[in-house]
Amino acid sequence: MTRAVRIIGIDPGLRRCGWGIIEALDNRLSFVAGGTLTPPVDGPLAQRLAALAEGLNAILDTHAPDEAAVEETFVNAGARSALILGQARGVVLVTPAMRGLVVAEYAANLVKKSVVGTGHADKNQVALMVKTLLPSAVIKGADAADALAIAICHAHHRVSARRMGAFA
Amino acid sequence: MTRAVRIIGIDPGLRRCGWGIIEALDNRLSFVAGGTLTPPVDGPLAQRLAALAEGLNAILDTHAPDEAAVEETFVNAGARSALILGQARGVVLVTPAMRGLVVAEYAANLVKKSVVGTGHADKNQVALMVKTLLPSAVIKGADAADALAIAICHAHHRVSARRMGAFA
Repeated sequence: MTRAVRIIGIDPGLRRCGWGIIEALDNRLSFVAGGTLTPPVDGPLAQRLAALAEGLNAILDTHAPDEAAVEETFVNAGARSALILGQARGVVLVTPAMRGLVVAEYAANLVKKSVVGTGHADKNQVALMVKTLLPSAVIKGADAADALAIAICHAHHRVSARRMGAFA
Repeated sequence: MTRAVRIIGIDPGLRRCGWGIIEALDNRLSFVAGGTLTPPVDGPLAQRLAALAEGLNAILDTHAPDEAAVEETFVNAGARSALILGQARGVVLVTPAMRGLVVAEYAANLVKKSVVGTGHADKNQVALMVKTLLPSAVIKGADAADALAIAICHAHHRVSARRMGAFA
């Protein structure tokens, strides 16, 4: 008998960080939990990043996922925005990795293709398909929907991703 | 009697991360330790960032600094480079903050001005002045010298930085 794999998807951000947890058993997916972390917007950057890490650690403690997936960031903004996003992204990648979870990364268009069937879907289409694929999901906002889409993408690709050495 | 404050300066980087620890007692500075972390250059990004965090945690365990200082990154490269540096920088900021250390940030030209006396010094001048200010220092490379310069800058500015709320 195959055991269900519990997957956390994370959509990184310093002000709004979406997260969503699903279970995958063979081809069946089920919703576990999801939401959006909102670290304080004021104060020293290191403290804001620590609040983000503590929020993620609390989720990892509560829901004990087996694997993590994070969207690869497509940088179309300026270097300053990329630096800020990168700092949040570093925390989002390192927090589950420090606990021994594998952390896979997927390009945004692969995430969309996995969920909607095309790499050019908009946020509403993604949220609608996430709700269709996970009927019991309570989706709290666009960032949480994106995070669930990332988790679904990982459920579809985790075996081949592992084979290709995309994560340890 | 004033107790010496132990300060770690960190020069963030994913391939080479300089660190340097000094003690400051009133106006006297002394060298404690320094070096460069070199996380693996291959493998999944999350694993490389975790190796960086583990390396920093080992240094923080061994040398138990009271406060940390990190150079503010001046982004003159493209958005892609800024994202990569940002990810390492996020780990460098969050690792001491998660242990309860204050983490101050200083602009690169303020670091140079604190050490050399001008904001436009080159790397060699910085290394030379670090060696002059910390005669007993064993400086292992340019990244370690930069990290010691950041620690020296924090020693000079920590009281006023704290007053201005630059760190908690």
